[in-house]
Amino acid sequence: MTLAAVVPAFATRPAHDRPHPAAELLARRYGARRPLDPAALGPDQWNEVLTGLLSHRSVRAYRPDPLPEGTLETLVAAAQSAATSSNLQAWSVVAVTDPARKSRFAAWSQNQAHIEQAPLFLVWLADLSRLDTLARAKVGDAAGLDYLETLIVAVTDATMAAQNAVVAAESLGLGTVYIGALRNETEAVAAELNLPPKVLPLFGLCVGYPDPARPAGVKPRLPQSVVLHHERYDATASDAAITAYDGEIRAFYADQGITAPDWSDTVTARVRGPAALAGRHRLRQILADFGFPLR
Amino acid sequence: MTLAAVVPAFATRPAHDRPHPAAELLARRYGARRPLDPAALGPDQWNEVLTGLLSHRSVRAYRPDPLPEGTLETLVAAAQSAATSSNLQAWSVVAVTDPARKSRFAAWSQNQAHIEQAPLFLVWLADLSRLDTLARAKVGDAAGLDYLETLIVAVTDATMAAQNAVVAAESLGLGTVYIGALRNETEAVAAELNLPPKVLPLFGLCVGYPDPARPAGVKPRLPQSVVLHHERYDATASDAAITAYDGEIRAFYADQGITAPDWSDTVTARVRGPAALAGRHRLRQILADFGFPLR
Repeated sequence: MTLAAVVPAFATRPAHDRPHPAAELLARRYGARRPLDPAALGPDQWNEVLTGLLSHRSVRAYRPDPLPEGTLETLVAAAQSAATSSNLQAWSVVAVTDPARKSRFAAWSQNQAHIEQAPLFLVWLADLSRLDTLARAKVGDAAGLDYLETLIVAVTDATMAAQNAVVAAESLGLGTVYIGALRNETEAVAAELNLPPKVLPLFGLCVGYPDPARPAGVKPRLPQSVVLHHERYDATASDAAITAYDGEIRAFYADQGITAPDWSDTVTARVRGPAALAGRHRLRQILADFGFPLR
Repeated sequence: MTLAAVVPAFATRPAHDRPHPAAELLARRYGARRPLDPAALGPDQWNEVLTGLLSHRSVRAYRPDPLPEGTLETLVAAAQSAATSSNLQAWSVVAVTDPARKSRFAAWSQNQAHIEQAPLFLVWLADLSRLDTLARAKVGDAAGLDYLETLIVAVTDATMAAQNAVVAAESLGLGTVYIGALRNETEAVAAELNLPPKVLPLFGLCVGYPDPARPAGVKPRLPQSVVLHHERYDATASDAAITAYDGEIRAFYADQGITAPDWSDTVTARVRGPAALAGRHRLRQILADFGFPLR
């Protein structure tokens, strides 16, 4: 993806008057609290991969156009090229294109219509079933899979793979959005996909061409000083930075004509108790039922 | 990264005689079981982002050269641009450059010397501490953080962020390798980094310039038919594909003069019981001690 495609203003200025390609991208992501001065970066320190990564936005409106032949396999090749813990490759993905099946996933995900719109819906799986089958056949035991540690391995493997697929999709001009709400109805999703024991449906991912009539915005993130620590963890300056970020998020939504609560209030409502977890507070019991004792 | 940089043979052939840029990349990743015919892809269906993703290899030998000013902040900006569940941003990262501290991390990670060699060592954290502090200050309760679900959110948030940093680093000509072995000594790592409760050090990441004298190979992965399912999960054809993959991995190591066990034997040894988890079978108890009751 070229910078001109994501930052239209860039293309219309004469070359001598163009800002560093990172300047507008960093301003969108961080507002006034830019974490670095792009003018200080050498010519080898910026490229179109970085432009693509910093341009990410979650897309919730898609054109119905199907994906070109070979796209799915390209995305999965990118996903499989991600690192995997001890080469265990403890993940799988189900590609869903059937409209009726996508409708059911939409219903289970708080009626997110973009799941039906997008031509491709990928369900990413933390998958210990393959290793279970192999190890039981070879040595009659796979007790290492019963530990929380091994679930963490499968979840990180699946997530690295999915994120590579997202980067690949965006490089092809496609949009994506993760659907964590699948975990609201984990049992229904597992039944729909005919999942064997020891497989957790982790999240969905819509893939399709963004609807140009309903463009998505690049959401500002916390100042870097909040998430980046040097040598040791130090949150002493976080309070003031979070207050500033509340202001950035207010401005972001105000730009879209939306009056939204402050970020710190939104996330507080999300974590104050199990009621806001939309059924996902049951995940521990569901995983036990699915063959993850999580010792 | 240009294809000529990662596949030197490409640069030396005249243009009319060059294969599709994906051909060699897919052959390295999949051997004889290529998941798609690159010649069938349209001109808009391949690009340098995909070339970079498919060229990934884990780098375990680094030059000592420091990273240019601004590199760390660029990597973190890419990381923060990844999706995050409900914009919770439930992760942090600690940048470690102090040689003595890197030595301690190397010692805790089964003496992986590349942790000391690499100029930058990033420790990625699943971080619920920030949300805990916020919610307790605002409403006096943060009980939603006590559920396994919320740990999964933090782990996936941290992993998406880290994977974006990896893609960004590789685009700048840097190499990386994840260090999951940090979890062998989770308590020591947490003490070293002064982590507050409700923060899990998930994995480390070495970042630096690859040592050209000790180049890393692109590791073959399972055939796509094993990890990619259509509409519903179906592992009926996996056995034969895994046998074929055992052969690919044997050939990969034989090329390097190494006699390695079959993949299916290696992973079986890794999952057959807790002894192979190198201390990580204790993770559930450690997380309880760290303030994650995982209801």
